[in-house]
Amino acid sequence: MRVSELVAATGVPLASVKFYLREGLLMPGAATSATRAEYGDEHIRRLRLIKSLTSLGLPVAKVRVIIEAIDAPTGALFDSLGTALSALPPYPDGAAEDPGDEDALPVDYPRARAALGCLGQTYTPTYPAVAQLEHALETLEQIGIPMSEEKLRAYGRHVRGIAEADLAEMPTDSPRAAIEYAVLGTVCYEPVIAAMWRLAHQDLAARTLTDVTRGPAEEE
Amino acid sequence: MRVSELVAATGVPLASVKFYLREGLLMPGAATSATRAEYGDEHIRRLRLIKSLTSLGLPVAKVRVIIEAIDAPTGALFDSLGTALSALPPYPDGAAEDPGDEDALPVDYPRARAALGCLGQTYTPTYPAVAQLEHALETLEQIGIPMSEEKLRAYGRHVRGIAEADLAEMPTDSPRAAIEYAVLGTVCYEPVIAAMWRLAHQDLAARTLTDVTRGPAEEE
Repeated sequence: MRVSELVAATGVPLASVKFYLREGLLMPGAATSATRAEYGDEHIRRLRLIKSLTSLGLPVAKVRVIIEAIDAPTGALFDSLGTALSALPPYPDGAAEDPGDEDALPVDYPRARAALGCLGQTYTPTYPAVAQLEHALETLEQIGIPMSEEKLRAYGRHVRGIAEADLAEMPTDSPRAAIEYAVLGTVCYEPVIAAMWRLAHQDLAARTLTDVTRGPAEEE
Repeated sequence: MRVSELVAATGVPLASVKFYLREGLLMPGAATSATRAEYGDEHIRRLRLIKSLTSLGLPVAKVRVIIEAIDAPTGALFDSLGTALSALPPYPDGAAEDPGDEDALPVDYPRARAALGCLGQTYTPTYPAVAQLEHALETLEQIGIPMSEEKLRAYGRHVRGIAEADLAEMPTDSPRAAIEYAVLGTVCYEPVIAAMWRLAHQDLAARTLTDVTRGPAEEE
């Protein structure tokens, strides 16, 4: 298809398509003349990926890390997945502020370390989700509702169950497809979980609380 | 304690404390003279709640809805909980754009309706998380990885397990404590789930993928 059809198929404006081509995020089409090129499904797919990521507010530099992990696979799939997923938000405060400073002491996240230890999971402090977990657990302490070990274990068990369902559907036919699935799945399933969680609260509360009316509120 | 001690204990600036008092979000202290008042633990608790909510970007009007549900409980606890939780972000696009228009047709969310039906849960289209679920499911369709029924059922089962762990720890001694717990828990546990989910992926992938090296990438 021509570039105009690519624009129509994806809803990505022509100026953006040209920008992504120039930046190397979108692979070039097959030249059919000096001024024309032919594009295919792989271009649609790539543009949808870029569109999904930028619409989430990812800066172009982060989109590039993901695309490079997809396009230039090196080493084990696990490492390419880690590289791509680490480019997703949220970005921990102060992370990589001085990436050149290799003498910097490694940061420790004691709450996340303890939680992961309790669950028998590996603790890798350079992984952004570890900083994210530390920050969330610290917030809970500060507002006076620290996470109990019982709750941590229940969360751990069920979150693992969700993650197993995700991995069960990860395409294994190519590293490229696997990384795309992991990146888009992480970005797009997170709001599904958040919404379903709130609706589960509502459903459980409706079943257990509707008979319970308020206490003598006026008399308080 | 004096207001200066309240500022020191919570880290909320004096100007903000005065603003919350004026707006009625913070209950007045007990007057000890014409210009002095005494504050207690309930003021610290309330300021922490306000601080948590505003630091998440909630507008004062939404914080007020939550505080009013806590302070002036009417009817069943389930309804007050619903009112308070509906004030939390994310706010669906276009919601309540014209709240005076009572003749507006009720909005339907077909994907969320089907998903909740599949899980045997109530479908209440006015509940914001329903719009959030619809939007998330639509996004998945658009990017070409729609949620399979198998995945939906696995998610439903495990998300419910997480919600059960939450409700098990909800204080039942007062409606006020229950609503505060539900609001703060919803806001502060969501990032815990998100971080644990990503770490579970990493842990599972490390166990299953580390032996699998890339295919003949150069030859692709």
